[in-house]
Amino acid sequence: MVKIGILGVGTVGTSVARILKDNADIIEARAGKRIVATHGVVQNTAKDRGVDLIISDDPNDVVENPEIDIVVELMGGVEEPYTLVTRALQNGKPVVTANKALLAYHRYELQALAGEVPLMYEASVAGGIPVIGALRNGLAANHIDSIQGIMNGTTNYMLTKMIDEGVAYDAVLREAQELGYAEADPTFDVGGYDAAHKLLILASIAYGIDAKPEEILIEGIESITPTDVEFAKEFGYAIKLLGIAKKSGDGVELRVHPTLIPQGSMVAKVDGVMNAVSVTGDRVGETMYYGAGAGGDATASAVIADLIEIVRGNTGPMLGYKKGLESGLKLLQPEAIRTQYYLKLKVVDRPGVLAAVTTTLSQQGISIASVLQKPSRIEGHVRLLLTTHECVERDVRSAIEALRSLEVVDDTIAMIRIEA
Amino acid sequence: MVKIGILGVGTVGTSVARILKDNADIIEARAGKRIVATHGVVQNTAKDRGVDLIISDDPNDVVENPEIDIVVELMGGVEEPYTLVTRALQNGKPVVTANKALLAYHRYELQALAGEVPLMYEASVAGGIPVIGALRNGLAANHIDSIQGIMNGTTNYMLTKMIDEGVAYDAVLREAQELGYAEADPTFDVGGYDAAHKLLILASIAYGIDAKPEEILIEGIESITPTDVEFAKEFGYAIKLLGIAKKSGDGVELRVHPTLIPQGSMVAKVDGVMNAVSVTGDRVGETMYYGAGAGGDATASAVIADLIEIVRGNTGPMLGYKKGLESGLKLLQPEAIRTQYYLKLKVVDRPGVLAAVTTTLSQQGISIASVLQKPSRIEGHVRLLLTTHECVERDVRSAIEALRSLEVVDDTIAMIRIEA
Repeated sequence: MVKIGILGVGTVGTSVARILKDNADIIEARAGKRIVATHGVVQNTAKDRGVDLIISDDPNDVVENPEIDIVVELMGGVEEPYTLVTRALQNGKPVVTANKALLAYHRYELQALAGEVPLMYEASVAGGIPVIGALRNGLAANHIDSIQGIMNGTTNYMLTKMIDEGVAYDAVLREAQELGYAEADPTFDVGGYDAAHKLLILASIAYGIDAKPEEILIEGIESITPTDVEFAKEFGYAIKLLGIAKKSGDGVELRVHPTLIPQGSMVAKVDGVMNAVSVTGDRVGETMYYGAGAGGDATASAVIADLIEIVRGNTGPMLGYKKGLESGLKLLQPEAIRTQYYLKLKVVDRPGVLAAVTTTLSQQGISIASVLQKPSRIEGHVRLLLTTHECVERDVRSAIEALRSLEVVDDTIAMIRIEA
Repeated sequence: MVKIGILGVGTVGTSVARILKDNADIIEARAGKRIVATHGVVQNTAKDRGVDLIISDDPNDVVENPEIDIVVELMGGVEEPYTLVTRALQNGKPVVTANKALLAYHRYELQALAGEVPLMYEASVAGGIPVIGALRNGLAANHIDSIQGIMNGTTNYMLTKMIDEGVAYDAVLREAQELGYAEADPTFDVGGYDAAHKLLILASIAYGIDAKPEEILIEGIESITPTDVEFAKEFGYAIKLLGIAKKSGDGVELRVHPTLIPQGSMVAKVDGVMNAVSVTGDRVGETMYYGAGAGGDATASAVIADLIEIVRGNTGPMLGYKKGLESGLKLLQPEAIRTQYYLKLKVVDRPGVLAAVTTTLSQQGISIASVLQKPSRIEGHVRLLLTTHECVERDVRSAIEALRSLEVVDDTIAMIRIEA
């Protein structure tokens, strides 16, 4: 029998304990041993979790307990779980974590600390979808060209509503909060930070890159308007909050932002709270992994998959590399991103204005792919919606500054990146 | 250094040797050791394969060669590779195979033979998509409710053309043959046998079921007509050749057949030569795995993933079970399948005919979900297109017999199964 201690018995922890019991037959057949959750650590010991665990509020009852074979960390936060996971690993206890923030900040320290002790984290990215296994094992023969992931269900739900039903951002956020899909303070989700944590984990496996959230481009969906949605539909795009990792020369772009993608692409077809990660390898081409990115049972499914693999003896290398990469790729600065752009301008409705705008863009080396002029609600103004051919972010940012300085262009220029 | 011998150096074998060389840096970093293809066995040693292997026409030069660490079997066929894989395993050499026919017939014997020697087969199902790993490891906490897979690119290409462009079966088959997507004798693909072999492999991992191709329902796409395609589009369905494994009570349905599925489902959105496997677990819900199901490099990507896992020491249990299942599920007979059905009848255009048809169906306990009557090319006749609510295949077969015996109904009744 393998005994599990769970740090943090909330929605996911409760599901882990319950599934280990309810599906004990099949889990034992697959793992070769019975796996039982015996201990749980919580802040409030008074609350009934409905599961049969020895509950305590002292993490030492798990990480320092010689009876516990494997530690499951589901606390959230960064520094406290880091301390506890460190302690468990030092005690030789394998650890399974679903904590993306912990890994976004400390995955390399933890890899070094763990050494030969298994540290598994399938549940940290895209919930129940086994995308860590796919990337680390299934695609290991490939240099990874790119990853595009819908890795946050809250924002995908909101964007789907905005596109399918024309609901505006504020209204759809309220609705998502009422349904429990969005938190009271939704910043972590709508601001793109949750997706960024997950992206960093995938980027380490794909490229061996040690980047921190602060170093990469992160933009949320807060400023997407019905005009953007209309434009997207008219030009055959979906709008998705994507985590993107992309090889570009000998560097890697890492970025999270709302993205216009062609409606025909597989990722564009993923709607509602569902997640999907598309991975393109140099040999396998595009592959995609789809499923529930959150929820107690789905996340617990991934946690228990890791437990089974540990019991089977199949683990590591934690971040996918047995040896250092001889020629590692470096993180590209956000200014060096190369992609296509959509720009939304409000301009004075007067002859010569379009010429002034296009001249300014071409002076910055930016070539226009399409233009759409629409009436504005403000009299004497029109909306100018443009898309560019591929260009460098630095140039686009300069161009936006230059456009703002034109007398005929309003200050509020919006920009959304496009991926083919 | 790990030395690989390849049995069968065709398209996939050449790709394996080439990728091991071209991506040697990343493969060594991920596996921890350099993996090199050194020997190849072919029938015609005169032909240049463009890869740097010691070529021979004697399989013993690989399976009995003490220098070879791992054997890769890419010969095709059943009995010859079975003998050779057996020999390699008996010699303690791990084996990686992409041979679905071999596994469809001998996976349980091979599992017993292999014992602790790794026998891996990621490439045998859905080419480059790491669906074996996902199902065996990533979803191991789940009882599997169902699997729906587009596991044959030839037929998916053909059906996509038939639906998108209205091309008839014979014309699209000729086109697929010209493009190299279909063989001169296309039976293995269009008849559903290729998909059936793959389904049986997945069913073993999902349910521990030892079934042979002869025991399951296999229907091909040969009799799909433009009328069926039109009906599907009108009623919001796609037509896909699916491999389906589905828990039903304490049994499992295993079947391959053209299937009407709602256009909104993820599997319906997979077009052209691409493959996708949707797996629904009792805890994780629906997950889907998408990518290239064939092609030298994509298949080689999966073969090399297995080699890397063997070198890392992460393998098995081969079919996903360390122990026998205490309460294994049994294969349901095709007659016991429960699903919805589409029926296409040609009937005499006369009052009372629809009543006769519907009465006959209701006498067999079959309840009608929708009816569409269309003009027929034959004067005095009409086409009657029906869908049923869920019912048992046995009853549908009896009903079709009963309908055939009606004077007003033409003999050629077509039936396509529907999955929600």
